[in-house]
Formats: sequence, structure tokens, C-alpha cells
Amino acid sequence: MIPGVRALLFDVFGTVVDWRSGIAREAAPFLARHGLDITPEAFADAWRARYQPAMAAVRSGARPFVRLDLLHRENLEAVLRDHGLDPDTVAEEEKEALNRAWHRLDPWPDAVPGLMRLKARFVVAPLSNGNVALLLNMAKRAGLPWDAILGAEVARAYKPQPEAYLRTAEILGLPQGACMLVAAHNDDLAAARAAGFATAFVPRPTEHGPGQRRDLAPAQEWEVVARDFLDLADRLGCPA
Amino acid sequence: MIPGVRALLFDVFGTVVDWRSGIAREAAPFLARHGLDITPEAFADAWRARYQPAMAAVRSGARPFVRLDLLHRENLEAVLRDHGLDPDTVAEEEKEALNRAWHRLDPWPDAVPGLMRLKARFVVAPLSNGNVALLLNMAKRAGLPWDAILGAEVARAYKPQPEAYLRTAEILGLPQGACMLVAAHNDDLAAARAAGFATAFVPRPTEHGPGQRRDLAPAQEWEVVARDFLDLADRLGCPA
Repeated sequence: MIPGVRALLFDVFGTVVDWRSGIAREAAPFLARHGLDITPEAFADAWRARYQPAMAAVRSGARPFVRLDLLHRENLEAVLRDHGLDPDTVAEEEKEALNRAWHRLDPWPDAVPGLMRLKARFVVAPLSNGNVALLLNMAKRAGLPWDAILGAEVARAYKPQPEAYLRTAEILGLPQGACMLVAAHNDDLAAARAAGFATAFVPRPTEHGPGQRRDLAPAQEWEVVARDFLDLADRLGCPA
Repeated sequence: MIPGVRALLFDVFGTVVDWRSGIAREAAPFLARHGLDITPEAFADAWRARYQPAMAAVRSGARPFVRLDLLHRENLEAVLRDHGLDPDTVAEEEKEALNRAWHRLDPWPDAVPGLMRLKARFVVAPLSNGNVALLLNMAKRAGLPWDAILGAEVARAYKPQPEAYLRTAEILGLPQGACMLVAAHNDDLAAARAAGFATAFVPRPTEHGPGQRRDLAPAQEWEVVARDFLDLADRLGCPA
């Protein structure tokens, strides 16, 4: 139990949903159709690898805030080019359908039942770099019972910029200490703690596939370390 | 059935919740304690009467965007002054507690069961001038099953400015015609229609008390006119 925490804010990609399996599943028929010489999993990794660099230009102020849907789309075209496919030769609808794969990711098995229990006692909302439409479409498809859709688009700042956390607390009308970030990533939690949030680490040891090396264990003494969202609900006093 | 509509956006004060009864209920002990010579219902009406003028300064650009919680608070102090009570003589916590009455309004009896049915088929979200914390606290208390919390604060514009509707559609990633505003107010629906939204009118004939004269009937041929949210669910093909 963490006294005073009223809202649980969740990182989404990796923490709530398994992006790698979902993108690989959706990309497989596209890659086969276009004869690209790359496994679906490696394609997912290559697409995701461009995620942080794409946000860097927005974080630095070199580029005004744009939604993640647009960054994903630009990154998709770059990855296709890297693998010898000129994106201009692919139909617009086909590129757009593949880009929307990020709206159709499956949650880890404990995510929905865990959130249902946590929601009875806390405000539960994403604090993701995903845009509102992406997170909303994902939630409707997967049954994620968010109370609100927050994150980079509402805060107009990408994590781990302090504004992403600070403005989220302000929008909720809560002091930062009443907000807890739940994430599978130590760097996200470190930025949240620096902004005054409480922190909960939930490892997702297969987010990056079977050979994952990073984020297998807590890097600091986070307020809570939980095995999964059901264990988190137990530790935060939300009965089954 | 309205083909192509994907999201139902709801006006909240008056359409989803009964603000007049809620504010009167919460104000009654305050008025008694301070000996103000006004009925709780008249106090609610006086507080609400300052709502549109307070937003006018923001709409005109004379004042930067501020949350409705702040406008409600300023309006509360003005109403107290109008009735002979200097707000500076009232404890800060007491004023703040009364101001938060807007977070604790009860839905009309059909609202929650109607939204539950509509949610199975459509994105359901508020498109209110209320700020996110207000709408979220209201929803948690009352069980309003919103998929997302949208409105003036997220769009950074107060209805009936076109931007309030246009930016909401853009945030949802939908063309305006895939969005339907549900409201008990003809002027709100007219602004939504001008912005390209579909429209549904649900009259709330006692919103302003027993002697209500306005908004008893549709002022235009709105796409849907429904008796309440259950009738709306019937008309939009959402079975019980």
C-alpha cells in the first residue's frame, strides 16, 4: 500500500501490450506479399528501433509536436526503404493499414483482469507516447478499461520529458505524489520519480523476444515491484 | 441508424447530469451556515448564469485558455459577493469543497444504462466544457463508462467555438461526419452541425427546473431525436 496514491498511470507499449508479437503478426502477410527478406519479428524490432530517435526531434524542439501515428508512418517508410522496398510503390491504403497495426496490439494476459481490479480503487489511465486515437482504438478492441486516455498528445510532450508527467498530474488535478507510474522500463520510472511520481515496476521479460537483456530487474528501489498486474493489484490492496 | 457514425460525443452539464439538483443539494448546507437569503435552487441558477459570460473572455481570445474549475471558482466568489457574503471571509477549504460540487453531479437515471449499451457499438466520450479532472471525478463517482475524456481542455477551445468540435474529431482520428454530438441544447447541436458532426437531440425538460421554457423541442431537423439515452440506444441499433 502506498498512502496518498490516487491515480495509476501506465506506460503502454511493452508494459500493457505486447507490441513485438502484434506487429510481427500484422506485418507477416505484408512482408510475404512484397517479398521482403526479413522475419516478421526482426521487422517489428527494426520499426520499433526508430521510435526513440523519431521522438528526439520533437523533444529537442527542432520539430513541433506531432502525433505518434505520424512518426510511426514515417518510420515505416524508412524501414521499408532500408529493406529495399520503395514505399512510393506501395498503395496508400496498404501502408496505412499496416501503420494501424499499432492500434491493434494485444495486452499481456494479466493486463485486463489486473486493470479491472485496480480501477475499483484508483483512477487508471495510460501515460503513453501513443496518441489518443491509437490508445482508444487499442482499448476498445482489447477491452482495456481506462478511465481516461492521457499521455503525450494531451500533455503535448513526449516521455521522458518532465512535462509529460507534470502536465498529466496537473490535468488530473492531483499533486505529483498522488500519481504512480506503472512501467516495465527503468528509464521511464526514473523520469517519473524525478517528476515527483510514485513508481511501480512490472517486468516484461519477453517484450523484446526470447533474448531480452534489458529491464529484467529493477534498477532502483521503486516503491512497488510486482510480477504482473494481478500481483500489483494484490500489493495495492485491490482484492480479486 | 446513421451510417458511418463511429463516435458519440456527449454534452455533459444538463445532457448527462442534472447540475441544478446537484449544486442545490451541495450548496444548501453552505447557504444555511452562512445565512444567505437565497434558495439552493436559485443559488444554482445564479452560479450557472455566470457560466457562458465567463467563457466568453476565453473564446474571444481576451484571456488565454483556463480550465472550467477556475471559472467556476471565480463565478462562485462573484455570486457570494452578489448575495452579500465577502468570499475572503470564507475558509479556502470551504470554498474549494463547494466548487468541487461540479465534480459530484448525479446522472439522469437513463444515462448510465444508456451509455453502457451505446458503448458496445460506439466510442462514447464527453465533449464538454468541463475540464478533464472534473469529468473524470464525476465519471468515477457516478459510474459513467466513458472510453476517453475529451472536451474543451483537450481541444483547448470552449464550445460552441468550431475548434472544440473540429479538434475533437481530429484527436479521434475520425472525419467530422463520423462523430455525432448528443446534447439537450439546440445551440450546441447547431455549432456541431456547422462543424460537420451528425447530431442527436435528447431533451432534458427539467434541467432548469419545473418552469423550463428553452430546449423543450428540436429547433432543427437533427439526425436523431430521442426521448432519453435508452431510446437513443434503440434508435442507434444498440440492443439492451
